[in-house]
Amino acid sequence: MADPTLAELLDRSAFQSRHLGPSAAEEHAMLAALGVQTRGELIDQTLPASIRAATPLELPAPAGEAAALAELRRIAARNQTWRSYVGMGYAGTILPQVIQRNVLENPGWYTAYTPYQAEISQGRLEALLAYQQMLIDLTGLPVANASLLDESTAAGEAMTLIRRASKSKAEAFFVDAACHPHVLAVIRTRAKWMQIPLVVGDPARELDPQRVFGAHLQYPDTYGAIADWSGLIDRVHAAAGLVSLGTDLLALVLLASPGALGADVAVGSAQRFGVPLGYGGPHAGFMAAREALVRQMPGRIIGVSKDAAGRTAYRMALQTREQHIRREKATSNICTSQVLLANLAAFYAIYHGPEGLRRIALRAHFMARLLARSVKMSLAPESAAYFDTLTFRVGTAQSNVRSLAATKKINLRMIGADRVGVAFDETTTIEDVVDVAWALTGHHVNVHERAQAIATAPEAIPPGLRRANPVLAHPVFNRYHTETEMMRYLKRLENRDFSLVHGMIPLGSCTMKLSAAAELAPITWPALANVHPFAPPEQARGYAEMLGQVSKALAAITGLARISFQPNSGANGEYAGLVTIRNYHAARGEPHRDVCLIPSSAHGTNPASAHMAGMRVVVVGCDATGNVDLADLEAKVAEHRDRLAAAMLTYPSTHGVFEPGVKEFCDAVHAAGGQVYMDGANLNALAGLARPADFGADVCHINLHKTFCIPHGGGGPGMGPIGVAAHLAPHLPCHPVVPEDGLDPESGTVSSAPFGSPLVVAISWMYLRMMGAEGIRRASEIAILNANYVASRLARSYPILYRGANARVAHECILDTRGFKDTYGANAEDIAKRLMDYGFHAPTVSFPVPDTLMVEPTESESKAELDRFCDAMLAIHAELEKIRRGEWPREDNPLKNAPHTADELAGEWQHPYTREEAAFPVASLRASKYWPPVKRVDQVYGDRHFFGGCPPVEA
Amino acid sequence: MADPTLAELLDRSAFQSRHLGPSAAEEHAMLAALGVQTRGELIDQTLPASIRAATPLELPAPAGEAAALAELRRIAARNQTWRSYVGMGYAGTILPQVIQRNVLENPGWYTAYTPYQAEISQGRLEALLAYQQMLIDLTGLPVANASLLDESTAAGEAMTLIRRASKSKAEAFFVDAACHPHVLAVIRTRAKWMQIPLVVGDPARELDPQRVFGAHLQYPDTYGAIADWSGLIDRVHAAAGLVSLGTDLLALVLLASPGALGADVAVGSAQRFGVPLGYGGPHAGFMAAREALVRQMPGRIIGVSKDAAGRTAYRMALQTREQHIRREKATSNICTSQVLLANLAAFYAIYHGPEGLRRIALRAHFMARLLARSVKMSLAPESAAYFDTLTFRVGTAQSNVRSLAATKKINLRMIGADRVGVAFDETTTIEDVVDVAWALTGHHVNVHERAQAIATAPEAIPPGLRRANPVLAHPVFNRYHTETEMMRYLKRLENRDFSLVHGMIPLGSCTMKLSAAAELAPITWPALANVHPFAPPEQARGYAEMLGQVSKALAAITGLARISFQPNSGANGEYAGLVTIRNYHAARGEPHRDVCLIPSSAHGTNPASAHMAGMRVVVVGCDATGNVDLADLEAKVAEHRDRLAAAMLTYPSTHGVFEPGVKEFCDAVHAAGGQVYMDGANLNALAGLARPADFGADVCHINLHKTFCIPHGGGGPGMGPIGVAAHLAPHLPCHPVVPEDGLDPESGTVSSAPFGSPLVVAISWMYLRMMGAEGIRRASEIAILNANYVASRLARSYPILYRGANARVAHECILDTRGFKDTYGANAEDIAKRLMDYGFHAPTVSFPVPDTLMVEPTESESKAELDRFCDAMLAIHAELEKIRRGEWPREDNPLKNAPHTADELAGEWQHPYTREEAAFPVASLRASKYWPPVKRVDQVYGDRHFFGGCPPVEA
Repeated sequence: MADPTLAELLDRSAFQSRHLGPSAAEEHAMLAALGVQTRGELIDQTLPASIRAATPLELPAPAGEAAALAELRRIAARNQTWRSYVGMGYAGTILPQVIQRNVLENPGWYTAYTPYQAEISQGRLEALLAYQQMLIDLTGLPVANASLLDESTAAGEAMTLIRRASKSKAEAFFVDAACHPHVLAVIRTRAKWMQIPLVVGDPARELDPQRVFGAHLQYPDTYGAIADWSGLIDRVHAAAGLVSLGTDLLALVLLASPGALGADVAVGSAQRFGVPLGYGGPHAGFMAAREALVRQMPGRIIGVSKDAAGRTAYRMALQTREQHIRREKATSNICTSQVLLANLAAFYAIYHGPEGLRRIALRAHFMARLLARSVKMSLAPESAAYFDTLTFRVGTAQSNVRSLAATKKINLRMIGADRVGVAFDETTTIEDVVDVAWALTGHHVNVHERAQAIATAPEAIPPGLRRANPVLAHPVFNRYHTETEMMRYLKRLENRDFSLVHGMIPLGSCTMKLSAAAELAPITWPALANVHPFAPPEQARGYAEMLGQVSKALAAITGLARISFQPNSGANGEYAGLVTIRNYHAARGEPHRDVCLIPSSAHGTNPASAHMAGMRVVVVGCDATGNVDLADLEAKVAEHRDRLAAAMLTYPSTHGVFEPGVKEFCDAVHAAGGQVYMDGANLNALAGLARPADFGADVCHINLHKTFCIPHGGGGPGMGPIGVAAHLAPHLPCHPVVPEDGLDPESGTVSSAPFGSPLVVAISWMYLRMMGAEGIRRASEIAILNANYVASRLARSYPILYRGANARVAHECILDTRGFKDTYGANAEDIAKRLMDYGFHAPTVSFPVPDTLMVEPTESESKAELDRFCDAMLAIHAELEKIRRGEWPREDNPLKNAPHTADELAGEWQHPYTREEAAFPVASLRASKYWPPVKRVDQVYGDRHFFGGCPPVEA
Repeated sequence: MADPTLAELLDRSAFQSRHLGPSAAEEHAMLAALGVQTRGELIDQTLPASIRAATPLELPAPAGEAAALAELRRIAARNQTWRSYVGMGYAGTILPQVIQRNVLENPGWYTAYTPYQAEISQGRLEALLAYQQMLIDLTGLPVANASLLDESTAAGEAMTLIRRASKSKAEAFFVDAACHPHVLAVIRTRAKWMQIPLVVGDPARELDPQRVFGAHLQYPDTYGAIADWSGLIDRVHAAAGLVSLGTDLLALVLLASPGALGADVAVGSAQRFGVPLGYGGPHAGFMAAREALVRQMPGRIIGVSKDAAGRTAYRMALQTREQHIRREKATSNICTSQVLLANLAAFYAIYHGPEGLRRIALRAHFMARLLARSVKMSLAPESAAYFDTLTFRVGTAQSNVRSLAATKKINLRMIGADRVGVAFDETTTIEDVVDVAWALTGHHVNVHERAQAIATAPEAIPPGLRRANPVLAHPVFNRYHTETEMMRYLKRLENRDFSLVHGMIPLGSCTMKLSAAAELAPITWPALANVHPFAPPEQARGYAEMLGQVSKALAAITGLARISFQPNSGANGEYAGLVTIRNYHAARGEPHRDVCLIPSSAHGTNPASAHMAGMRVVVVGCDATGNVDLADLEAKVAEHRDRLAAAMLTYPSTHGVFEPGVKEFCDAVHAAGGQVYMDGANLNALAGLARPADFGADVCHINLHKTFCIPHGGGGPGMGPIGVAAHLAPHLPCHPVVPEDGLDPESGTVSSAPFGSPLVVAISWMYLRMMGAEGIRRASEIAILNANYVASRLARSYPILYRGANARVAHECILDTRGFKDTYGANAEDIAKRLMDYGFHAPTVSFPVPDTLMVEPTESESKAELDRFCDAMLAIHAELEKIRRGEWPREDNPLKNAPHTADELAGEWQHPYTREEAAFPVASLRASKYWPPVKRVDQVYGDRHFFGGCPPVEA
């Protein structure tokens, strides 16, 4: 071995070679297979010269993983984790360590994909059913979805759901003024662009059922008060309106359920069921509703069905139906949800069980009552009915209270100039009550003595509002209360699922790249996990620094001027970006600009987001090669010139191609006064190579969960910050509680927390810090290399539907299987299921083109793994040929019967192929085999027998 | 649901209910099945009243897991993690995060048991083979074992191995004075009691080959110097002696190997291959040797064999042969090894590969050369030939150097009054060299400029001592260099193994209880992981506090006065305890007391430890009920009255019984002037119920890896601190580098590090802190309840061999299967293998009684899991009956062919039972099945074809 150079010896970029799949030798072989000498040559053939970045990316020199972790630890240490009794939908909570370690810190859970392939997702589907069941029990409503992005967007979705479902002819929607301010802000923003008049006020006095199509009330309200809304709900119902309740899951353990009060919808956040505060997220928003509303529910609902062998099996029963079915008319753009966080909340409920949750709820309630008792000589809470939150009118003493609290490192909620809010939670101890009582009154109170004097019953909840029925009676909530049982349950579920720990997940448009352990490590550090989103800025300096650095890097990568972290998903980023564009036009006196051009190849979220931003969607066609038809674009621009607000563009395209006309596209839009919104879903092929701003993007969302390594978590969290050009910067979304410099409160709000889900931005920070500029560029190049290598190996058996210049694809490619059904009697779905037998997750099925497979290998897969995948695909093709030749019947062959389970092998066997051909079609599977836990899931049965809770055990 | 009481509401002992398996309802049902009303009644029936503790245990009130973690975080923060260039066998290193997360922080790895059941241990066996192969490559010696406790005990074992194997008639052993001081101290202690005269000196001048049977030399030595020992080794060989080298794995990447120099044995520590310093451990000691010595090797060696289907399969080829075969004459008591740490080191080598390791070694070497170059105007290192460690004679400037270093928070090694040692490592940067150069000279040197001026070649290694041959050529070291590949490799191995994440591991005498996630969390905190064992006490205040608190708790539990943490395993604790007893007798003028009474039922380590302490073992028989024959005891005491040193006793006995005569036993020994050594392996049945000191123990070792939750790690780490009565306290082992108050350096040393493996004591700290006194007592009671429940359910099919009063067993029970071979044609081993098909790890096979099964369920298993196990055992019994009745042939039935693999089901099937009966004998397995990766491993083939490295890939 030659001695390394000094530069090599001191090289700090070692992480690059860990993140990138192919070794030097593998890369060499792949380039040779593609007929090029160097990676540079391949990129020159692939990426239009006209958009190449003129100068290299500027990022700090990369740090090794230990150094990067040490640096982030120093940054995180600048946060101060005071005791926070601020509440407002964010509560202190304790994630049990068995869940933290075995789920949140376990790639077997966090690297799984959204459960589109139900057969190999049974573990997380079972967990999500428990999540839905928990919500059904606590809300008293029979249907719940499998999470939304946060509490505010859930409330916004409730409003539009009610708009769709309400039979009232009234135009306006009523919102309780005692909602959390960020919830109100998000509803206001949505209502503004969807042109729904809002009435915000005190429900008891200002809600006129005749004048609204529905109402959103808060229970308990943001100040802690509990009211019995049942009478008011009846009156709204009588006027044909519908009512949603914003609520609190822990409170519902003790309170009469929204369903019992008559509510149609309940929304909120599942954060306080074990999910760290994380300075705002990620957390699961929830929604539950009456049965009649099930087909109107946004997001995804998990349901019970059966598999081909008749056993119980789970699947996504309803998913983003809005976008699929209504497309340009959709009023929900929900795509990503918060599966990992929803599952944490479900596991929290499973581990504590009904008795444990009741004790936690009673304790928080007890502490609030103890505080009220302890300060009663000087102060009385505004409401006598409360759960865990009290508001006191302290008058001019407010600043004094703030100072006293600060000496104890306690954050209380300052309301207006004369009120103080105190929200207790799972973590609150009697000692904490002592300190808060002192801060409120300046007196040392014998709290311990008072504690002995009061009962543990929920005495501050009016008897009529106390929960009567038991919750969480299903065995899943009553079986796993020891750590040993819980650990095994979690492992059983984990081992049913296929994740990146088993093999590649070549999902076109989803970028299932490596989420490195070092990137994930920081998210469970207390210094990052335990910061309240509304903590004063001086307690969040670490977060400010981390977000600032990521912001700078994203600006460098996109060429855009300012980044907003507020959107929690790509789709929410689209919406935020379009709202920003509308704000911009309005500020220029052109509020009428409302046309949004969207290519027909666009992801379904694009038109939905445009619709939510009050835009009219005009579709631009594609030509025969799959590219945007520039002639059609010119025509549509001309037609809508005066009202053109924006055009949306995905680049490289959803067809996996670097379209050569991208500059022309942007120029045409700009010439008509429109703004270009670039969907950044495919930034993985651009970063470090070309900057969207350089070729014309004015706004671009950045899927941190695709290009920047936030793992998919089985279907979320996502994170979709947007970058905007300088002229749009003043029009970015703002936040009512934590305003940002240079932003206008009138620009609106798109998420609960000011910076979206800052906790997981730490993952992207680590990635950027360890990769450096050269690493980021190389990642894009290898992503392109890997995709072209796969395309070249498979093209003879699976035609590549679209190619760009020099017959190259970008970072993904579409395998055209559209004629297969006729030729072989098996379609893309059969191939997808058969891949499970070979130990792979399928590529994206039927997006963006029906009955095709879109493969995105990402830069993290080695040639060895790409070859294993290609070998499997070619072996499956040989199986198809056998069917074509009639060696196997069209209705009984390994593809039709795929996937095959282990217990199937043990039983009778009456197929025309052997057990070996079924389960071990290639020899390497004998050394390591992932077993699908169920056979093909019966979608039709599930559709006909919808059931969205935990099935009875006898099933 | 009734409202909880205030005490229940505020209860901080929630962890108890997480740790203990049975719910209240389950406990009730189990008590009923045993015919008792309460747990107290059962304990009264089981535990002799005469030994019950008079007063409850005193421990701090328990803390919940979040509170306990917060408390330990505060304690750990009292440690200061300075940069340490102290060396002495402990180096800074970086554990790659992918290994930390997927192995060290993963219960799938750390809760596995020692791989006695090879078929369900293939993952860690493969890893251990890689560890052995790595050692074989680096040491140039063809056989390596699968780890020893630490470097010092490995050196001690090398001496006794050489004593056994040397053909020289000389009596003395030579030891290089330039060994690390703790290595020398451990060798001295061992030699003293085994009566091996030592010559310690400069090998070049003082080693006379004619006068020694062997020698132990250091390479590089503790001061960093490298010498070519080949000529001296030749001379020792010429005189029929053998030579071991103490060495450094990272140095060996660049140095000519010990094998190339002619050494017979090489020993050292694998710590610097990614294993955290942890204030001293746990780390894997290693030993490699010439082929001819393989049957003499202590500890365990993993070997390659094949399974019943002819495919490659791994197993423990050689294990603690000394104790099994030689028993009373054994000179090694090795039992526990350091599997988890050995595997971390192997994975480190696999992940970095040969080129990566070479770069790491060259960098450390470069930094040392850079330092030498940077200070050369004022100082020259003592040796011109070195790897990464330099020693300078600084004269009176030593204290000045220390002060300057302290201002930079750097620890250097102070040697005598006038020398300073500097040992660099993987973590060292040029900035570190700048600081050290400044500390040494007081001058700011332009180190960066000098760095450019020197080559990267290993120029301070004499050309004749540079390694010529490549290392780590096997594919396993060249395939998994990206994180994605490494993660999948680790998961594939993990998923081959059965661990506590799959189901119970009911191992008698081994106590496979829960190791809770909260208990394990602290061991990867930098504040605990990154402390050098010889850091000044003021930098280790956190450790002092933590160890002090555990010490206090263990003293309370045992009733003994002082705890020594030095022993790294139970067996090493036995040795330490017996040495302490010998020191005591010697101090009283009775050095001739050397007889040790040991019951015939004792664990094999007992006589081996006694022999190592220079004692004569006298065996005491057992009576028909399995108890120590007190009459025989009296006779043996009488016979050896004047020379009686000690008697060893396991309590409750290895037969799983609370022997009623324990007090009489102790009294008889005391009456003759002997000391009672209690083997604490079974403390899990006593803690909180009875204190060993109260019924007569003078010494007791405490397996923290059994009773106090340190996980087994697939075969280590262990931790075996000892408690001693006050009169023995002054005679406890001491440490040459870190002396403890009140101890005598002449008492000897048993481990490399002063406090053994302090890092993992954090696990026991957490357990004690979260359980509290009542929890600890309850754990013992539930352990007894669970064992009696299993015994009661199985007794009709599997007779319980030994019972105590009221027909109760203690915390484990022996199932008597000795007649089964005749009756059913299947024996204990067949049952053990068949249990794998049912999803269980077997109980302990053939210990302490051949051809029986010993079941220890521990307190962590729920009744549901115990029932699942009992149901499986009863189902297997029904299978046995089928064989007996001739329904299945004796040579072809599910027991004989067990375990069954998945791919077996896919092939031809010619057995008289069905595939279903083979693999899914009970329905619940269809929902969740652990698949053994290989069929029964062929022990005979493996014995005949020993191969202890990675097999060629074609295999």
